[in-house]
Amino acid sequence: MIKTKGYATHDSNAKFAEWEFERRDVGPHDILIDIEYAGICHSDIHTARGEWDAMMPTMYPLVPGHEIVGRVSQIGNAVTKFKVGDVAGIGCFVDSCRECTPCVDGFEQFCYKGAAYTYSGTYMDRETPTYGGYSDKYVVDENYALKVTSDGDLAGVAPLMCAGITTYSPLRRFGVGPGQNVGIVGLGGLGHMAVKLAVAMGANVTVFSTSPSKEEDAKKLGAHNFVVTSDPENLTPLTGTFNFILDTVSADHDVNMYIGLLGIRGTMVVVGVPPNPNVIHSFGLIFGNKTLAGSLIGGIAETQEMLDFCAEHNIKSDVEVIKPDYIETAYDRTVKADVRYRFVIDMKNA
Amino acid sequence: MIKTKGYATHDSNAKFAEWEFERRDVGPHDILIDIEYAGICHSDIHTARGEWDAMMPTMYPLVPGHEIVGRVSQIGNAVTKFKVGDVAGIGCFVDSCRECTPCVDGFEQFCYKGAAYTYSGTYMDRETPTYGGYSDKYVVDENYALKVTSDGDLAGVAPLMCAGITTYSPLRRFGVGPGQNVGIVGLGGLGHMAVKLAVAMGANVTVFSTSPSKEEDAKKLGAHNFVVTSDPENLTPLTGTFNFILDTVSADHDVNMYIGLLGIRGTMVVVGVPPNPNVIHSFGLIFGNKTLAGSLIGGIAETQEMLDFCAEHNIKSDVEVIKPDYIETAYDRTVKADVRYRFVIDMKNA
Repeated sequence: MIKTKGYATHDSNAKFAEWEFERRDVGPHDILIDIEYAGICHSDIHTARGEWDAMMPTMYPLVPGHEIVGRVSQIGNAVTKFKVGDVAGIGCFVDSCRECTPCVDGFEQFCYKGAAYTYSGTYMDRETPTYGGYSDKYVVDENYALKVTSDGDLAGVAPLMCAGITTYSPLRRFGVGPGQNVGIVGLGGLGHMAVKLAVAMGANVTVFSTSPSKEEDAKKLGAHNFVVTSDPENLTPLTGTFNFILDTVSADHDVNMYIGLLGIRGTMVVVGVPPNPNVIHSFGLIFGNKTLAGSLIGGIAETQEMLDFCAEHNIKSDVEVIKPDYIETAYDRTVKADVRYRFVIDMKNA
Repeated sequence: MIKTKGYATHDSNAKFAEWEFERRDVGPHDILIDIEYAGICHSDIHTARGEWDAMMPTMYPLVPGHEIVGRVSQIGNAVTKFKVGDVAGIGCFVDSCRECTPCVDGFEQFCYKGAAYTYSGTYMDRETPTYGGYSDKYVVDENYALKVTSDGDLAGVAPLMCAGITTYSPLRRFGVGPGQNVGIVGLGGLGHMAVKLAVAMGANVTVFSTSPSKEEDAKKLGAHNFVVTSDPENLTPLTGTFNFILDTVSADHDVNMYIGLLGIRGTMVVVGVPPNPNVIHSFGLIFGNKTLAGSLIGGIAETQEMLDFCAEHNIKSDVEVIKPDYIETAYDRTVKADVRYRFVIDMKNA
């Protein structure tokens, strides 16, 4: 077994302290990753604080982190994709059944047997708990690790493993590209990635935000237009003008307002789960043959495609790098949206 | 001007009586259709009774009817698509601006200037009122008339002009075909067409209905399976098994229940507008990358494609042919769902 140093919380107070645990030995198909950076995703906070207990109870002690990047320090004798020294990433899951239709079709995140989520889950034996990336090492089957070819600093690569694929997948699925008007609702960890990706795909990008103060940032990220949504008057002239809108907001808000901005056969995708369900007027979808869809991260092949796209277009997340002793403060600031745009824990020097 | 005999109501009491009015003379691009059959659509009833006044006020005197089939008795000198004696149809609109993006793209129903709806609307001069198919003649631009090549009795062809295209368009758009599990929710005028069309497209078709008594009919229409929805237990084993579900129900009902039956990347399309909006749980769309879409009739080219498909596959609506003096009774029975599956007025012998 491999001794690992992590940062864990033992209950829903989400107080993090150093905690030692063991990872499995490197098997024939495994790689050992020396973790350099781990992003802090909203899911980490919800899970650490037990806020999703009704849906999936948090397993304590909890070591969160599913935006992981590091260097391969050991490989199993059957490994073919990686060699020692390669940069590798881990996203939201580390294994799945590999046999069901979703697994075979590249949607491992929807594995019928339940994927092995990177933390607060179990491996496919359904017994051994998983611990996440707020730690110095991870042993993972090479088929569930991602190859990273981006140049330079890796801190901005970590958030691609969740925030990147969450936004890339729906943009690609619905064919976002040149000549299209694309709206991004919300400019947080997900939204800022969505802007960079949609711009790189060639779309004309508009950011919708309640905060006028984010206009300058939105433009710096590459957005062509910025609309303050607190005054509905600002939206009226945009009725029917969007091909695609990606809604990254997890707070309660009126989705119908954005459906109205879609043109004929326009598509809106939601990736956030607000506390309360949406009230959707059928007529808003019917008149204009419009579509409302959901999207959850991506499979391994698509995540790799996203990483390659980001390397090619030099896309990384804008991050604030912190030490592990800042996790609790980072959680509080993330909840207040006081981060541009992702906290990333430096595990290399932890 | 051409003297026309219609059946009109002069107010929201929806009492129909013979009423004479004039249609325009046959212009160079026009055809004159001697109407043989006009279907009774739910929209006719809502409009006649003023139930949609908040959205679009009914223009009285009202001659409803947008499921029209008849024979061409006169053509303008520039007409190329039709000759005298041809069978022709008219659907929900009889003109549009022909210049806006939706018109150019074949979505005339969404014309930015507002299509000229077949009744209770105005022609593109925005002055001359339109009168529908509960009448013995219609003068229409050949570009907004459909060619009918079906053999035999025409009564069952009339409802294709609205119920047919309303269901065909989403089935085609989302690629329904062999090997797919397709659900049809509700077995009324729309639902029974959807079953016939989806079966002809090669799908494995399941009908969802609250009425156990409809099982025999569903099977006769070609459905492979029938599920009584009043007991939710019947749905549980079907979770995640459908590629596509078409929801034709206009009464309030829980859409989330059906979204749960969709597999990964599954699509549900609503074509009915219940009185109250739907309450949609985002997580139900997100987990499985699912889609909820709306659909409204179809453009001229797609409606023609549907008619050709129906002629090729010998698909017609199941109808009960009535005389004009039965319209009021037919309305009452339609509202009670006491019709299998469409009333069609015989205008040939009226």
